[in-house]
Amino acid sequence: MQYLRNCWYVACLSGELGQSMLARTICEQPLAFFRSTDGAPAALTDACSHRLAPLSAGCLKDGEIMCRYHGLRFGRDGRCTHNPHGPATASLAVRSWPSAERHDLVWVWLGDPDAADPAQIPDLSFIDTTPPHAKFTGYLETAANFELCTDNILDLTHTDYLHPDTLGGGGLTRARGQVTTQGDTVAIRWENPAEVAPPALDREFIRQGELSDTVTQVEWVAPAILRLSVDVAPLCPDNGDEIRTATMHIMTPESPMRTHYFVVSTRNFRADDADYNAGLAAFINGIFLTDDKPMLEAQQARMGTADLWACNPAMLAIDAASVQARRVLQRLIAAEQHQPENADSGTK
Amino acid sequence: MQYLRNCWYVACLSGELGQSMLARTICEQPLAFFRSTDGAPAALTDACSHRLAPLSAGCLKDGEIMCRYHGLRFGRDGRCTHNPHGPATASLAVRSWPSAERHDLVWVWLGDPDAADPAQIPDLSFIDTTPPHAKFTGYLETAANFELCTDNILDLTHTDYLHPDTLGGGGLTRARGQVTTQGDTVAIRWENPAEVAPPALDREFIRQGELSDTVTQVEWVAPAILRLSVDVAPLCPDNGDEIRTATMHIMTPESPMRTHYFVVSTRNFRADDADYNAGLAAFINGIFLTDDKPMLEAQQARMGTADLWACNPAMLAIDAASVQARRVLQRLIAAEQHQPENADSGTK
Amino acid sequence: MQYLRNCWYVACLSGELGQSMLARTICEQPLAFFRSTDGAPAALTDACSHRLAPLSAGCLKDGEIMCRYHGLRFGRDGRCTHNPHGPATASLAVRSWPSAERHDLVWVWLGDPDAADPAQIPDLSFIDTTPPHAKFTGYLETAANFELCTDNILDLTHTDYLHPDTLGGGGLTRARGQVTTQGDTVAIRWENPAEVAPPALDREFIRQGELSDTVTQVEWVAPAILRLSVDVAPLCPDNGDEIRTATMHIMTPESPMRTHYFVVSTRNFRADDADYNAGLAAFINGIFLTDDKPMLEAQQARMGTADLWACNPAMLAIDAASVQARRVLQRLIAAEQHQPENADSGTK
Repeated sequence: MQYLRNCWYVACLSGELGQSMLARTICEQPLAFFRSTDGAPAALTDACSHRLAPLSAGCLKDGEIMCRYHGLRFGRDGRCTHNPHGPATASLAVRSWPSAERHDLVWVWLGDPDAADPAQIPDLSFIDTTPPHAKFTGYLETAANFELCTDNILDLTHTDYLHPDTLGGGGLTRARGQVTTQGDTVAIRWENPAEVAPPALDREFIRQGELSDTVTQVEWVAPAILRLSVDVAPLCPDNGDEIRTATMHIMTPESPMRTHYFVVSTRNFRADDADYNAGLAAFINGIFLTDDKPMLEAQQARMGTADLWACNPAMLAIDAASVQARRVLQRLIAAEQHQPENADSGTK
Repeated sequence: MQYLRNCWYVACLSGELGQSMLARTICEQPLAFFRSTDGAPAALTDACSHRLAPLSAGCLKDGEIMCRYHGLRFGRDGRCTHNPHGPATASLAVRSWPSAERHDLVWVWLGDPDAADPAQIPDLSFIDTTPPHAKFTGYLETAANFELCTDNILDLTHTDYLHPDTLGGGGLTRARGQVTTQGDTVAIRWENPAEVAPPALDREFIRQGELSDTVTQVEWVAPAILRLSVDVAPLCPDNGDEIRTATMHIMTPESPMRTHYFVVSTRNFRADDADYNAGLAAFINGIFLTDDKPMLEAQQARMGTADLWACNPAMLAIDAASVQARRVLQRLIAAEQHQPENADSGTK
Repeated sequence: MQYLRNCWYVACLSGELGQSMLARTICEQPLAFFRSTDGAPAALTDACSHRLAPLSAGCLKDGEIMCRYHGLRFGRDGRCTHNPHGPATASLAVRSWPSAERHDLVWVWLGDPDAADPAQIPDLSFIDTTPPHAKFTGYLETAANFELCTDNILDLTHTDYLHPDTLGGGGLTRARGQVTTQGDTVAIRWENPAEVAPPALDREFIRQGELSDTVTQVEWVAPAILRLSVDVAPLCPDNGDEIRTATMHIMTPESPMRTHYFVVSTRNFRADDADYNAGLAAFINGIFLTDDKPMLEAQQARMGTADLWACNPAMLAIDAASVQARRVLQRLIAAEQHQPENADSGTK
């Protein structure tokens, strides 16, 4: 499969990368993640240059990895810093991959290393400014192509059928989402004026079942970084303050049919309640686990190894955003593959 | 693999299809089975036309399926009866498959729908006329090609070695079965005059170990529908009445190396004894589970993905019936594939 | 994959082959092993000539195998001795494979039967002369190519990193092994004069942590038969006698990515202590199970289906012996494939 290379992929939640190494395959590339002595994340190809033993099975000491098979050591730049059996030559280096930590997430760059600029990481600073108990994270490995996972969020009408008693309720189907494509960004917006909010949010108000104005929005940027916000303003001001949630849904391909699915969810209410936060995390992550993941995996199972278009699906109006996002991604991948390796050498 | 298409396949036992849907793959085609409001069986391709979500994971209401992913609804004819997101156009239809219920079995037709005629379902009305406690059913998924399962019944000498203490006993090996091929039917008949009946039947007489005349017959029709009858008449009339059993062994291909194996067994004795019937069902189905299924699967494992002939087996006289049946089936498949799509358009 | 054919492979430990049959696939050939009436091992292709049922699922009686599916019987030479359904013709024979029992091991020959000479089985008579409680065996199925397992023993520096607290300790890395290739034999020798012995051996002396002269040697012969000896002589004679261990590590390919790994270990100390022997067997086999096997399998997983050279590994000095052994084996396989089927017919 062809992946977009010159972009930042989320490799793991910050909390997943502690004192020990983390093995994770991204876009079919096995990687070993670890923290340098300064705490900054590092990523090396997860196979020793000598005998391909996984470095992630080794020891981490003083910010270096020692391979557990024959004791070679590697620094965060991939250079072999010690070879117990002879000189630590340059040819013993393993590839290192640019990585960075931003917004409670560890990111990795799989393309041209010279082009890796952390400034290109999408600005998710709303996560940083959210109090600790007003946000939670989730991670789920899903046996489905990452674009199926993307489609799932870009068409939230599915909540009305897959999660009718929690996240859905019929509103998104009624609202007829409006799609906007601007440059490489695809957005969709559903407006539900003067309706009862979705069950999982309605219950947060003082009186339930009363009317609110609800706006739901999803913004997608490549390769698969989606911000889903739901804002609910009750019509009667004495029924509580406006509720706002913003949740990142980020899908990182593991392989053509497996996806690392990351969630970072923030909200503006009950921001200091650690117990409530923990309960909400379990509730929301549980919905993904028991509803979305099985549906995405069943869909993939029906498709086998074919891509979506080869399955000749009947497209509906609700697919407009996901089709746009798929097109943008295809365009970006095509552009990347046709660009000269080094533009200024073209005249030589 | 090439399957016979214009024929009725058994999809499930009637008892397997209740209030909820049943997902079953037949000849590599995933199907969702359900009952219409009138109780009649229906079968749709088990993938929504929109996004390929399995319809069998959806809801069944008023004889219609609602896809659990985006709420599209489908009638028993496959037409989309409701699209919450726009018009329910003809292009949203999923394929429906002719189905029928006969003889405690649900049948499905995978070929040309216009040619689907339930009158072509083999007449197994002896099942209908058997009292409820004089018959039992069985279902077993077997990781072996369906023709290996067919061969197993068309050569019952295997009972003398695989089931020596129950169904076998040496008689079928001694009898040298006589094979008859008439049109598309292959039959084999073993006669055992004045011998002790097989252990599982001998014990039904008043005095065990005495002589009987036993006739065992198997009749095969395509694709893999076999009727196995055993009739045992004791030589001394005071040793009990003649015992007759007739058991359908029906193999429906799931895929080249997996088979849905159905059993419907009837008998003429102890016809009102529900406990005996339940015990006999457990006993006979247990034999298939612990003896036949492992042997068929081991055979398939040795063959890998090759077909039988590619494995260059040494054929014996006992294979005559199974070789005949394989030839008839090959002939029927070849005829089906070479027939013009529309015979009367040939002069155009 | 191409295997060396004209050589003796270890099929099983003598103790694995008792009264019943043993099914084992060697070089992708499924084989049924059993003992003839005289106790000698025999090996037949593990698929009946008739219908490919595994003979190893059959019955063993009077030194003959009866297929459990249709009752054909086969002698140790593979000829069909009884066909209950007709004549036991020559065409019903299954292939028999030369086999022999030597040195607590059962061996099988996969090449030209006329060339099978048990005298070519490597002389491991040191096993035969070791008292019963001074030796133990091990068997491990490993999901890695057999040459990776060979490499693991021919480069014992891995013990310093993979087993630092037991078999290793740093000595082998310091010693810089000396490789000798003579004809078809590859040997490597590490000398550690005046050092503390490896932990697992040091603890056998009267006083631990004192200096010894240690010599570690591995001798490889094709296809993958390795003798590993460790001799430790304490500098102070009053610290105990010289300790000597000799352990066979024998790898038999099951398939390109699976290996039967056999161990037969002997020693010169505590030769009469059955409990100690059992404990040592559990300890040493446990190390292979928890350290080596996972590392070999992880290495193979990184390599996928590619061979080592296709993975472009960086070779170190410590790989010298394993590279030599791989070359000898390739040369032997190439020679075998280019030799005329029948040398004396060349002039015809």
